Amino acid sequence: MNNFQFCSPTEFVFGRGTENEAGAYVKKHGGSKVLLHYGGGSAVRSGLLDRVKASLTAAGIRFAELGGVKPNPRDTLVYEGIELCRSEGIDFILAVGGGSVIDSSKAIAAGVPYDGDFWDFYSGKARIAAALPVGTVLTIAAAGSEGSGDSVVTKEADGLKRGTGSDLIRPRFSILDPELTCTLPAYQTACGATDIMAHVFERYFTNTKEVEITDRLCEAVLLTMIRETPRVIAQPDNYDARANIMWAGTVAHTNIVGVGREQDWNSHGIEHELSALYDCAHGAGLAVIMPAWMEFVCSHDVMRFAQAAVRVWGCQMNFAQPEETAREGIRRFRSFLHSIGMPVNFAELGAKEADIPKLVETFGIGGGRTGGFVALSAADITEIYRIAAHAAL
Amino acid sequence: MNNFQFCSPTEFVFGRGTENEAGAYVKKHGGSKVLLHYGGGSAVRSGLLDRVKASLTAAGIRFAELGGVKPNPRDTLVYEGIELCRSEGIDFILAVGGGSVIDSSKAIAAGVPYDGDFWDFYSGKARIAAALPVGTVLTIAAAGSEGSGDSVVTKEADGLKRGTGSDLIRPRFSILDPELTCTLPAYQTACGATDIMAHVFERYFTNTKEVEITDRLCEAVLLTMIRETPRVIAQPDNYDARANIMWAGTVAHTNIVGVGREQDWNSHGIEHELSALYDCAHGAGLAVIMPAWMEFVCSHDVMRFAQAAVRVWGCQMNFAQPEETAREGIRRFRSFLHSIGMPVNFAELGAKEADIPKLVETFGIGGGRTGGFVALSAADITEIYRIAAHAAL
Repeated sequence: MNNFQFCSPTEFVFGRGTENEAGAYVKKHGGSKVLLHYGGGSAVRSGLLDRVKASLTAAGIRFAELGGVKPNPRDTLVYEGIELCRSEGIDFILAVGGGSVIDSSKAIAAGVPYDGDFWDFYSGKARIAAALPVGTVLTIAAAGSEGSGDSVVTKEADGLKRGTGSDLIRPRFSILDPELTCTLPAYQTACGATDIMAHVFERYFTNTKEVEITDRLCEAVLLTMIRETPRVIAQPDNYDARANIMWAGTVAHTNIVGVGREQDWNSHGIEHELSALYDCAHGAGLAVIMPAWMEFVCSHDVMRFAQAAVRVWGCQMNFAQPEETAREGIRRFRSFLHSIGMPVNFAELGAKEADIPKLVETFGIGGGRTGGFVALSAADITEIYRIAAHAAL
Repeated sequence: MNNFQFCSPTEFVFGRGTENEAGAYVKKHGGSKVLLHYGGGSAVRSGLLDRVKASLTAAGIRFAELGGVKPNPRDTLVYEGIELCRSEGIDFILAVGGGSVIDSSKAIAAGVPYDGDFWDFYSGKARIAAALPVGTVLTIAAAGSEGSGDSVVTKEADGLKRGTGSDLIRPRFSILDPELTCTLPAYQTACGATDIMAHVFERYFTNTKEVEITDRLCEAVLLTMIRETPRVIAQPDNYDARANIMWAGTVAHTNIVGVGREQDWNSHGIEHELSALYDCAHGAGLAVIMPAWMEFVCSHDVMRFAQAAVRVWGCQMNFAQPEETAREGIRRFRSFLHSIGMPVNFAELGAKEADIPKLVETFGIGGGRTGGFVALSAADITEIYRIAAHAAL
């Protein structure tokens, strides 16, 4: 096990009706004038935004509003948010939405006190040194952004999708009411579930030996997702299944399941190019990419894939031919994703094989290699896209 | 799943050599004059205390010392610590030791700014409203006190062992170097492992339905302990096995494995009377009590015990007679504890059946009932002690 530091100071407030406490938590964490940042559509129609506003008003908190965050949140709205915060004297950002809204909020929070262009944090040109505090009211179990210091934003002009991270943009509190997710369409629910499982697998496949505790914690989240996701697809308003998924999504990404080990994250990088180019859902892109990545790297550590197959997918171990078991686990993963309505290949995702060279070029690895479980070259990434393009059950 | 709040703000610093960062972390968390609180013996002999002092000095932190904490920490030393802190102008308590040292430190931390008798917090007469900040350098994986807001102290005059809890006494940082535990004797190692497993089981047996995610996280910790404990008993200096146990011990007690559900904690209460009367190790007392408690309450929810038997102990499910499976799981737990050197009954623990009436009286339930998974009367507790007195493999 590797040395590590772990701190997850976010205050999580979980359960029915907790969105009505938003105002009290903003106050507790020192906010007096809030930017209420959201997407639109369902948060407005469902009355959620009105309940949050009522809660802010009841707590004596003033607010300005900025809606319109899109999936794969854009830099353009972030610039607008930064200006608005400065002109209105905002001292707290409250995100009401999913990962895109929260990531956009984090970008605004870091951008407000920064002299330069906030994109510097995403291009790697600068590190976040200060940020407004952020709180969240989560509406979809997926990105885990409610408990992480990470943010991913897309530059609208050239379609670059890039991430940054800092404890300074980690939410001070996150309100998680599973009931808010009961009205989510099946497709979005499944995209979220895929993202959650991918967050775990990115940590599970490691070259670090002897990290049984984090292996087991990873498996705990995956087993929960495998049980609960088909239930919410069949019964969208099953509160308990929604609740288990929602908390699993947070646990999957505070890094409690990833400490003490090297992690991979190549599937996320490879997927980001797909959602940047096609504006597809991140989870749907992962459903196509991650099993393809697994097939490509499986032979690097057959016994680790066999462990996942046995412990997570319930495969019988083939002791004579462990690779059979390892590959059966990958097949079950893809089959599971298909069963919850996810695409399995480029055609189902709406991606084109002819675009692979462009995807690889934008990935920007040049003649180098990525890091992670298996360090990938441009040729490797090309091959993973090719496997993903042609994948079948 | 029940509504819950969860916040674990402690900064964990894990791995080889991290005790040398103690001074830097005290400084980061605002300490300028520290009470260095410890037991004695091994922390002194091993040179650990000298390394921590050097680290404090290097960071420009002054300190006073108070050693002599015993297992089942006493109120008498807490009073001494409170006086010392007041007279020396201490602003930070650094615990170097295990659960007893940390619990004693928490009691001192809460007592210093309090006008009355610190025991008020343990007798239930008052709630903690302020406390000095606490940090820890952990030397045994067991109590989980390094990541919790709990503290248990024994009143020396009458042997009362009572607990309190508050986020104000939760450690600001905890330094966990598994190497420090490699020299622990097998018996203490096994006592610690038993305590860790008990912390999980106290949360696992619940009447709350549909908490799959916390069930699975509980099982993750238990499976880790079942794999790693025999390894460290056989190879005391196996760093990786020690590391997995150490982090499992923390995860077991931040409450991440217990949120969203009612919990039990009767075995801890019943055990506390044993360690108060006989001054035996808490873990050894739990090894005798918890399987006895399980046998007593098993019929309350046979399928939950069967789930533990199958998922944790690897039993084959007897679908015709689930109670057979449930009870086989309990037998395997007791047998596992025996295999790591723990006592299985009163005689092996050094307790006397004739003392049962006294134990029940001190427990102090009177004509009432406890709470938890099964609400116990004095007669029930008597029967659990009786089962524990006579238990055999």
